[in-house]
Amino acid sequence: MPMSTTTRNGTTLAAGVLDAVVVGAGLSGLICARTLRRAGLRVGLLEARERLGGRMHRRATAAGIPVDLGGQWVGASHHRLLALLEEFGLRRYPTFYDGDGVFLWNGVPHRAGVEHDFAASLLFFRPAELGLPPAELDAALAVQDRFQQLVAQVPPQAPWATPGAEDLDRTSVAQWLERQGAGELAGYPLAWLTRMGGSGGFESHESSILHLAWTQAVAPQHETPEAWLVEGGVAQVAERLAAELAGLIQLAAPVVSIRQVNGRVAVGCADGSVIEAGTAVVAIPPPLRQAIHYDPALPPQWSGLLQRSPMGSMVKVLALYPRPFWRERGLNGLGIGNLPTLELTVDSSPPGGPGMLAGFIAGERAVRWQGLPERQRRQAVLADLQAWWGPAAAEPLELVLHNWNGEPWSGGAFTSFLTPGAWTSYGRIWQQPHQRVVWAGTEAASRWPGYFEGAIEAGLAAAEQVQTLNGLGGCCAAG
Amino acid sequence: MPMSTTTRNGTTLAAGVLDAVVVGAGLSGLICARTLRRAGLRVGLLEARERLGGRMHRRATAAGIPVDLGGQWVGASHHRLLALLEEFGLRRYPTFYDGDGVFLWNGVPHRAGVEHDFAASLLFFRPAELGLPPAELDAALAVQDRFQQLVAQVPPQAPWATPGAEDLDRTSVAQWLERQGAGELAGYPLAWLTRMGGSGGFESHESSILHLAWTQAVAPQHETPEAWLVEGGVAQVAERLAAELAGLIQLAAPVVSIRQVNGRVAVGCADGSVIEAGTAVVAIPPPLRQAIHYDPALPPQWSGLLQRSPMGSMVKVLALYPRPFWRERGLNGLGIGNLPTLELTVDSSPPGGPGMLAGFIAGERAVRWQGLPERQRRQAVLADLQAWWGPAAAEPLELVLHNWNGEPWSGGAFTSFLTPGAWTSYGRIWQQPHQRVVWAGTEAASRWPGYFEGAIEAGLAAAEQVQTLNGLGGCCAAG
Repeated sequence: MPMSTTTRNGTTLAAGVLDAVVVGAGLSGLICARTLRRAGLRVGLLEARERLGGRMHRRATAAGIPVDLGGQWVGASHHRLLALLEEFGLRRYPTFYDGDGVFLWNGVPHRAGVEHDFAASLLFFRPAELGLPPAELDAALAVQDRFQQLVAQVPPQAPWATPGAEDLDRTSVAQWLERQGAGELAGYPLAWLTRMGGSGGFESHESSILHLAWTQAVAPQHETPEAWLVEGGVAQVAERLAAELAGLIQLAAPVVSIRQVNGRVAVGCADGSVIEAGTAVVAIPPPLRQAIHYDPALPPQWSGLLQRSPMGSMVKVLALYPRPFWRERGLNGLGIGNLPTLELTVDSSPPGGPGMLAGFIAGERAVRWQGLPERQRRQAVLADLQAWWGPAAAEPLELVLHNWNGEPWSGGAFTSFLTPGAWTSYGRIWQQPHQRVVWAGTEAASRWPGYFEGAIEAGLAAAEQVQTLNGLGGCCAAG
Repeated sequence: MPMSTTTRNGTTLAAGVLDAVVVGAGLSGLICARTLRRAGLRVGLLEARERLGGRMHRRATAAGIPVDLGGQWVGASHHRLLALLEEFGLRRYPTFYDGDGVFLWNGVPHRAGVEHDFAASLLFFRPAELGLPPAELDAALAVQDRFQQLVAQVPPQAPWATPGAEDLDRTSVAQWLERQGAGELAGYPLAWLTRMGGSGGFESHESSILHLAWTQAVAPQHETPEAWLVEGGVAQVAERLAAELAGLIQLAAPVVSIRQVNGRVAVGCADGSVIEAGTAVVAIPPPLRQAIHYDPALPPQWSGLLQRSPMGSMVKVLALYPRPFWRERGLNGLGIGNLPTLELTVDSSPPGGPGMLAGFIAGERAVRWQGLPERQRRQAVLADLQAWWGPAAAEPLELVLHNWNGEPWSGGAFTSFLTPGAWTSYGRIWQQPHQRVVWAGTEAASRWPGYFEGAIEAGLAAAEQVQTLNGLGGCCAAG
């Protein structure tokens, strides 16, 4: 096979031979490529899709309103992402938390204010205001306390070093709750966290209590990960980065093989073209990494880990209304609860723009929902929006339903999780390169994995590793 | 991209356009291709490896003894495989079960005869002869009884229709045992079945009690799946099938994409060549199916299921001795028990040949073992062989250690399993084709999946589906 920097469809990624080829032009890959290029390396970026940005992706609604179909929030402590917004002159506005939200429990709405100290809240609500039966509420808070004690013991980069890690990793979240004697309400906050709380779309029987505790240790809810929104959509960050890398990116170029010979890599694309470079950065979600054939083969430890890293199941919902009508009743649009389809809504109305509620369908709910005929899908979402926000919610100007599970180059959203036992049996290898193949993508981060902030961290870390592997020393502290 | 029946390296798979292209030349793919060809269809077979046979694979030891590195046994009710042996004139001989085996429990050997009625046994041993503490033994048999009652309720083609399926699928095997109050010995038979008993190399926290019950419903241990061995190795079956298909098989041709256009398929290989056909049969293990890009994309239900179908972790051990010395002490070589590395040995000495013990390292034991330096790997195996069969076992003529977890085109052995919740959330689709893409491979079978017999069943079923899709009606009752 010919080695070149030219793909078959004619794009020349760079003059001469590349120092690094980055696989995947999501946020993490873009950051990595930019960092390397700024350090003077010759870089190429291969993207399987016809578009850039991965899970950082926006589109305009029919009415021309730009909306983020993937992640949309910026956290209070997402310093790297905040710095990028600043660099690109993108304006942010605070998520609207004034007034009360609604905790919907078994069909009954419980109105309460937002408690920003997560550990003192019941899923972000002020417990005392919820009007739930005191005994059930106390039981729920007690379970949450025990969980938070566990979270505090998990080392972010080495969850297998948590005291009692093996047993915790063999214990599903559901089983741990069973051991606590947790009833339905007491078990709900953790079940909600598995599906919705940054962990990403799995059910409490699908992963271990160790993994769930790790997700909270590395992405602490009390740091308010949904603090800010970005005017025009956060996905502009990916677009700006891509613009800076114009000419270095090849779209519609799925990578099918990475061969390592003589201290270099040869990256094969689906069209048969081969790109040669000093190092490869694989910046795609863990389950998709299996779609690449590695020669030499990935060690069995890696193969075992990747096979035990499914993506969460997640559908993004955006409902646009003429105005944020819920605010008129002193409500902030924060809805959490055990409805059949939507388990979360958040006000993400742009300043002066239409009213907008973002919502999520996760885990088994998403699987059931995606099996429905299209009309019923819409109806199921509208029914739940109404349950929270009343009859006015039934008539959105526009209802955007984006099923990430149907995107083959994502495989789900918004992050992957590890199945029970995987951390302690296979996990030690999770950040280790495979010779000259380096891993990026948000899942490779040890802080805010599953978030854009983690994608940036992982992209920068990969850039560092590339520099080291190419014998150039560290370069890349700044994004 | 050019459509053709010629791969880039020059092999012409068939004159004219193909009716079907089979991806994967393991037993299932070979059977499917042969069946279609005998029905008059033009067939091509693409294999990623440089060799044929997949998990049906033998090699000669240093002393020239042919040994099966993958599966080796033929079951008493494996009628299709028995018919192939007959067709090819391959000679079989019964597995040696005369005399006593050894159940090794916490370092203590318990000698007992083999009980062929599995449900009345403790893992194939006559319970009364084991000399175990009666209370512990009774508890173990009681748990096993409850499990067998569950097995009897599982419909082989639709485990999600088992009474109480959702709860059973959300309950890990370990959690189910915890609910039974099972102590260590009482829990061991099911833990052993998850790792060794045809289910294939997973731990009791990695899958659900529903899945384990299904594996036993579709591959009943009481039908004696290890009844026969084949002189010269069962893998000769794949070799004979391949010889019949000479000229139609392309080796070293990993498939990277399957595009469906105008009622036909275009199968793309890693070298950029594209093979056109009426139908594609994907005859590879479920997790590896994700390495192919499908256009149109796989439905999200398929993607979710495949991401939740890891391969078991399994290492095959073959220890050759000048003669089957254990028989001289009235022992049959059947060793089962909680040793640190090997949990099973079976006498597989060829008639008149050397003594041979086959053994397995499975699940977490395999993961730990593969992380050891090579010398320690060998020592760990020899230590356990000695624990069972005495000092003479420490000096094999040859010790073959084959780690299937290190084979990228297998991803593990001997079959895939489903993670908790996957059957009821995603499983209904498990045998459904994706338009003109049909699934084969042993995991697609509803009888003896994970065994060669299942591979044949799935290959034949796929051939039927191809005929139907190509508008030719059924053809293919016989193998």
